[in-house]
Amino acid sequence: MNGQSRNHTPEAKSIGAEAYRLAAELYPICRSITGNGVRDSLGIVSQRIPLQIREVPTGTPVFDWTVPKEWNIRDAYVKDPLGKKIIDFKDSNLHVVNYSIPVHETIPLDQLKEHLHTLSDHPDWIPYKTSYYKENWGFCLSHRQLGTLEEGDYEVFIDSELEEGHLTYGELFIPGQLQDEILVSCHICHPSLCNDNLSGVSLATLLGERLLAQPNRYSYRIIFIPGTIGAITWLAMNREAAARIRHGLVISGVGDSGGFSYKKSRRGNAQIDRAFAHILQHSGQEFALHAFSPYGYDERQYCSPGFNLPVGRLSRTPFREYPEYHTSADDLAFISPEKLGETFGVVWDVFRLLENDGLYVTRNPYCEPQLGKRGLYDTIGDNEMAMLWVLNLSDGEHTLLDMAEESGLSFGRVQQAAELLVEHSLIVKHDEFQMTINAIRT
Amino acid sequence: MNGQSRNHTPEAKSIGAEAYRLAAELYPICRSITGNGVRDSLGIVSQRIPLQIREVPTGTPVFDWTVPKEWNIRDAYVKDPLGKKIIDFKDSNLHVVNYSIPVHETIPLDQLKEHLHTLSDHPDWIPYKTSYYKENWGFCLSHRQLGTLEEGDYEVFIDSELEEGHLTYGELFIPGQLQDEILVSCHICHPSLCNDNLSGVSLATLLGERLLAQPNRYSYRIIFIPGTIGAITWLAMNREAAARIRHGLVISGVGDSGGFSYKKSRRGNAQIDRAFAHILQHSGQEFALHAFSPYGYDERQYCSPGFNLPVGRLSRTPFREYPEYHTSADDLAFISPEKLGETFGVVWDVFRLLENDGLYVTRNPYCEPQLGKRGLYDTIGDNEMAMLWVLNLSDGEHTLLDMAEESGLSFGRVQQAAELLVEHSLIVKHDEFQMTINAIRT
Amino acid sequence: MNGQSRNHTPEAKSIGAEAYRLAAELYPICRSITGNGVRDSLGIVSQRIPLQIREVPTGTPVFDWTVPKEWNIRDAYVKDPLGKKIIDFKDSNLHVVNYSIPVHETIPLDQLKEHLHTLSDHPDWIPYKTSYYKENWGFCLSHRQLGTLEEGDYEVFIDSELEEGHLTYGELFIPGQLQDEILVSCHICHPSLCNDNLSGVSLATLLGERLLAQPNRYSYRIIFIPGTIGAITWLAMNREAAARIRHGLVISGVGDSGGFSYKKSRRGNAQIDRAFAHILQHSGQEFALHAFSPYGYDERQYCSPGFNLPVGRLSRTPFREYPEYHTSADDLAFISPEKLGETFGVVWDVFRLLENDGLYVTRNPYCEPQLGKRGLYDTIGDNEMAMLWVLNLSDGEHTLLDMAEESGLSFGRVQQAAELLVEHSLIVKHDEFQMTINAIRT
Repeated sequence: MNGQSRNHTPEAKSIGAEAYRLAAELYPICRSITGNGVRDSLGIVSQRIPLQIREVPTGTPVFDWTVPKEWNIRDAYVKDPLGKKIIDFKDSNLHVVNYSIPVHETIPLDQLKEHLHTLSDHPDWIPYKTSYYKENWGFCLSHRQLGTLEEGDYEVFIDSELEEGHLTYGELFIPGQLQDEILVSCHICHPSLCNDNLSGVSLATLLGERLLAQPNRYSYRIIFIPGTIGAITWLAMNREAAARIRHGLVISGVGDSGGFSYKKSRRGNAQIDRAFAHILQHSGQEFALHAFSPYGYDERQYCSPGFNLPVGRLSRTPFREYPEYHTSADDLAFISPEKLGETFGVVWDVFRLLENDGLYVTRNPYCEPQLGKRGLYDTIGDNEMAMLWVLNLSDGEHTLLDMAEESGLSFGRVQQAAELLVEHSLIVKHDEFQMTINAIRT
Repeated sequence: MNGQSRNHTPEAKSIGAEAYRLAAELYPICRSITGNGVRDSLGIVSQRIPLQIREVPTGTPVFDWTVPKEWNIRDAYVKDPLGKKIIDFKDSNLHVVNYSIPVHETIPLDQLKEHLHTLSDHPDWIPYKTSYYKENWGFCLSHRQLGTLEEGDYEVFIDSELEEGHLTYGELFIPGQLQDEILVSCHICHPSLCNDNLSGVSLATLLGERLLAQPNRYSYRIIFIPGTIGAITWLAMNREAAARIRHGLVISGVGDSGGFSYKKSRRGNAQIDRAFAHILQHSGQEFALHAFSPYGYDERQYCSPGFNLPVGRLSRTPFREYPEYHTSADDLAFISPEKLGETFGVVWDVFRLLENDGLYVTRNPYCEPQLGKRGLYDTIGDNEMAMLWVLNLSDGEHTLLDMAEESGLSFGRVQQAAELLVEHSLIVKHDEFQMTINAIRT
Repeated sequence: MNGQSRNHTPEAKSIGAEAYRLAAELYPICRSITGNGVRDSLGIVSQRIPLQIREVPTGTPVFDWTVPKEWNIRDAYVKDPLGKKIIDFKDSNLHVVNYSIPVHETIPLDQLKEHLHTLSDHPDWIPYKTSYYKENWGFCLSHRQLGTLEEGDYEVFIDSELEEGHLTYGELFIPGQLQDEILVSCHICHPSLCNDNLSGVSLATLLGERLLAQPNRYSYRIIFIPGTIGAITWLAMNREAAARIRHGLVISGVGDSGGFSYKKSRRGNAQIDRAFAHILQHSGQEFALHAFSPYGYDERQYCSPGFNLPVGRLSRTPFREYPEYHTSADDLAFISPEKLGETFGVVWDVFRLLENDGLYVTRNPYCEPQLGKRGLYDTIGDNEMAMLWVLNLSDGEHTLLDMAEESGLSFGRVQQAAELLVEHSLIVKHDEFQMTINAIRT
C-alpha cells in the first residue's frame, strides 16, 4: 500500500458537481447558530457521511462564553397598510434578522423603519443581519423596495422562539493508522448564503466521504459547527482531541471564482502552512498566502494562544473583499461546480502530501549508489534529478516536503522518486514513531 | 498612573522654540574639549536642569587615553601690514584653530599661509579646525578673504593657555522606578556650530526638563560631554552606571531640515533600535535606518566591544553629508525651531514606547473572551483589531512592541488596547522583574 | 612570517601561459577512466609536481561501486568500401567511443550506422561519447561526414583491450602547519577535451607547484582522478584524510571565456562558500553563485550525506550550458591563457583568504584605543575605516572574513589593517587551536 494507491485524487469535475448539488439542497434551509436549521442541514449531510450529532444545552459554560438560547422560526412577514404581504420569510430567509425575537404588532412606517436593514450600494440585494447576543427583531429587504414604502400602518409578524434548548453540531471521526489527527472545520450557521457557509459544508462532506473510502495514515476529524460559539464549544468539550491535532484547516468561502487565498496558522511555518504553500505554488492556479491575523473565521479560536494549533484557513476571495458577502447575492449563481472541484483538488493534494510526507535514510550515505546497475540510470531528466535529490537528502533530517522545497520539484515527483528508491532498497523510511515526534515538534 | 498620563507628549512647537532659543544662547561661546567654554555652556544648561558638573584632572588615565591639558582662549587676531585687524576672534570663534597654543609674532605672508585654513569650494565660509593632540596654532578664514591678502608682514596674536587643568562634563540623573537606565549623550565641545553640537545639547536639556516633571519607570541619565575623550572619560569613571544602561541614544545633528537618520547599535536589533524603527515608520516623516559602523559620534565608544551597549544615534542629515558641516554655515539659520520640535517628538515617542513596553498575559488563553458582554465589541475597526491582536499575543512571550510590529498597528494604538484590556481584567501585565530580565536579555 | 609574505600572488599572466602550455601538452593523449592515457597524463604532471601515483586493482569494491576493468586502445579506424580510411583514431581520439571493446569486421553501412554518433546541430563537430558500464563499441564523426557515406561494406577496426588492470590516480600532499587540509580535486578522464578536464588539471598542477614553493598554514591535497568512480575510489580509500578536509574545491571548466560560476557546498554557508563569494564580489569579474544541487562533477560524491564535506565547485560557463561541451570544439582554441590566469588568481586569493583568516582579540575592549599616539591616525580613509572595523570586531567572535563581510571592505584590506594592529600590539590573534575548532564547527 503506497501513497499513490491510498490517495488517488478523485475526479475534480464530478466532485465539483456533487458538491454543488449538495449546496443546492442545503440552500433553502434557514440556519442559525442554534436550532432546527442546523439539525436539518446536518441531517442532509448525514445522508452521505455518518455524522455524530452533538447537542449542548443552553447555559453550558464554554470558556468565557455560555451556550445561548436556541432560536427557531416558523414564519415571518410584513404587511403594508392595504394588508398585502410585502416582505415574506418564505421568499427568502434573509428577510428576517437572524435571532429575531417573536413579534406581532401593527406600527407606523417610521417606527417600522427602525427595524429595517437595506444596502444602498446594492439596491437589489437583501442584506444578511444577525442579533445573537442582543435581543431584538428586524427585517432585511432591498433598498429599492424600501423606497416604495408609503406612509401608513404596517403589520409585522415574526413567529420565532428563543428559548432554552441546545447548540447542535456534527462531527465525523475517521480513525487512521495514527492517533494524530487532521482537523477540517466548517461553519454551518448561515441561512441561504452559498459561498459563505455552504461551499465549506459541501466540500467538507465530500472530503469526509472520500477519506472514508480509503485507509489513511492520519485520523481525520471533520466538524460542522456554528461559527465562533460552535468552535469555542467544540474546543471546550474536546480538549483531548484538540491535543491530537497535528494539522488543521478551516474551510470557508471556497466556491467563488476568485483565486485561492491561504491564511497561515499563528505558528506561521507549520507543516500545513508549508504544504498549502507548496501545493498552491505547483497548482498552476492563482493564489495568495496571508500571514495569520486574529480576525477571520474559526481559526481565531483554534489559534488562540492557549491552543495555538497548526490550523490554517483556505478561502478563495477573502470574506469582505467581495460585495456579495453577507447578502442575498451570495447565492447559487455565485458559486460554481468547477471552482468547488478545483478547491477539492487542492485540499486533497495537501492531504496526500501530509499522508505521504516523511523522513528517509539512505543506505548509501557515502557517495552516490550506482543507479546504472539497478536500471535506474537514464538520461538525466527530472525523474533522475528527483532521485539524486532524494538520495542526497535522505539523511534522516529532511522530509520529502523539505526535499521538494529545496529542489524546486513538485512533492509528487519527489514522492515518486522516493518510492522507487525504497523499492530498490536504496533508502528506507524513518519509522512512524519518529515521524510523529517530528510532527509534534513542528 | 498609566502610560499615557505619565508620558503626555509636550507640545512640539513650543518645545522647538524653546530649544532654538537655548541654542541661540549657547551659540556665541567658544567651546572646546576642555576649558571655560564648556563650563559656561553647562552653566546655561544648569539654569534649566540640575546638572552635576564633573571636573576630571589633566593627566587622569582613562582606558588607553589620558585627559589632556585644559585649553582656554581670551583673544586672537591677525593684523595686516598696515596694522589693520583682518581676522578677529571676536567676530567668530571659528577663526582660531581650536586648541591653538599661544603665539604673538610678526611674520611674512608666506609663513602665515602655512597656518591658514580655508574652503575653496565654499569661498565665503570659515572652516572649523582643531589640533587637540598635536601642539600647533592656526587661523581659519574665508577663501575669498585669503585671496585679498597682499605681501608683507602680518602680526599674529593668540592669547590662549594650554595648561594642567580639567576636563569638564555635566550629568543629570533622574531616578525612576527601576534602576535600569536610559542614557542620552550629546557632545558639547564645538564652538559656534549649531547643528553639530548645539541641536543635541538643547534637545537633551529639554528632554531632561520634561522627564524631571513626571514620574518615570526607567531612570534616565543625560550627559553633556566633549566628544570622544569625554565619552571615554565618562565610561572609564562610570563602569557601574554603564552596566545599568538598558537603552541609549547619542543625539547630534538634529536641527537641520533633512529627514531623520537613525544608526543602529552594534547589536543591530536592540530594543532601542526596534523602537526607533517603529516610531519613525509611524511618524509620517522621511527617515533612513543605518547599520552600525565603528565611525561616527560617541556611539563608537558606547558600542566598543567590551561595552557593546544598546546605544544608537539619532541625526537628521548625517554628518559630512551636508556641506555646512564643520563650517561657519552651520549657524543659527541652518537649524530651525520646527525641526528641533519634530526631533523632540520622535525621541519622546521612543521614550514613551520604552516606558510602556511590556509583556502581558491573557486570562483567557483558550479561545477569545467574549468582548460583547463587556461592551468592548463594536464594528470591527482598528481599535477592535488592536484588542484582538493584544489578546492573541498576550502569551507572556510578546511585548507590546512585538505586537505592534506583527500587527502593523502603531505602538500607541496597541498600548491603548492593552490598557483597556487590563482595565477589564482580560490581560495582566507581566511583573516588572520579568520585564527587567527581558530587557537585559535583549 | 605574515600572510602577505607567505602568499604573494604569482603573476596571473605568466601562470596563465604556463597552464595553457601544459594543457596543450596533455591535449593529444587519449584518456579514459582507466588506462595508460591517465598514466601518461599523470607522468607529464609529475614533471612539475611530485605526484604519488596510486593503482587500484579492477574488482576492488568501493562503497556501492566496483573498480572496472582497465581500458586501453592502440588504434582504430573505419575504411570505406574502396578501402580508404575515412575515420581514423590517429586524427582524433574522440572518433572512438570511449571504452569501446575490440572489434574487427566488415559490415554494411546500415549496420555500421548503429555504431555511429554525430551532432546534427553542429555538423562539423565530433561528439564525445563513452560506454563505461555497458560493453559496446562505436565511432563518433561529424554529421557532415556522415552524410557523405555511401552504401557498401565498411571495415571497422578497434584495437583496444578491456581487461583486469587498475584504476590510476595521482595525488599531491603538501604538509602545512596544520593537519587540517584543503582539498583540490580535478578529473583527468576525458580524452582531447580542453575546458572540460584539462583546464582543471593544468591549474591544479600549477596551484600545487606554487603552494610547494612556500610555507602554508593548511596542508593541501591535490588529487587528479577519473570522474565519479575516481572520486568514489579516493573517498573509499581515504576516510581519514577526508575527515581532515576543512575546505575543498572541485575545479573544472575554468578556461573558457565565460564569467565565473561558483557552486556552493551542500552546507551552503561553509567558509569556502563565503570565501569564494567574497573574493568573486571583490574581483571585478562577472560571476554567479549557485546553490548546491546533487548533479554535476565530483562535488556530488564529496557532498554525499555521509561525507557532507565543505567542498564547492569553481567553473566558468557551467557544463552543458556551452554547445562545445563534450565535443571536438572543446579544443585548445576554446580555452585561453588569459582566462586560465584569471581563474588561478581567484583560487589563489581564496586560498590566501583561508590561510589568513582568523579570530582576533583586542587589547582595548573598552573604548577605542588612541590611534594618534601610535601614528596610526590620519584623515579617515579606507585604511583607517578598516582599522576601526577590526578593532571593533576583534572580540574573539568575528573572523577577518566576518569583518570583511560586515564592513563591505575587501578581505585584503581588513587583513592588512589587522596585521598593522598586531604590529602595534593593539590586537592579538586567537591561537591556532581555537581557529581549528572554529573551522570544524563551520
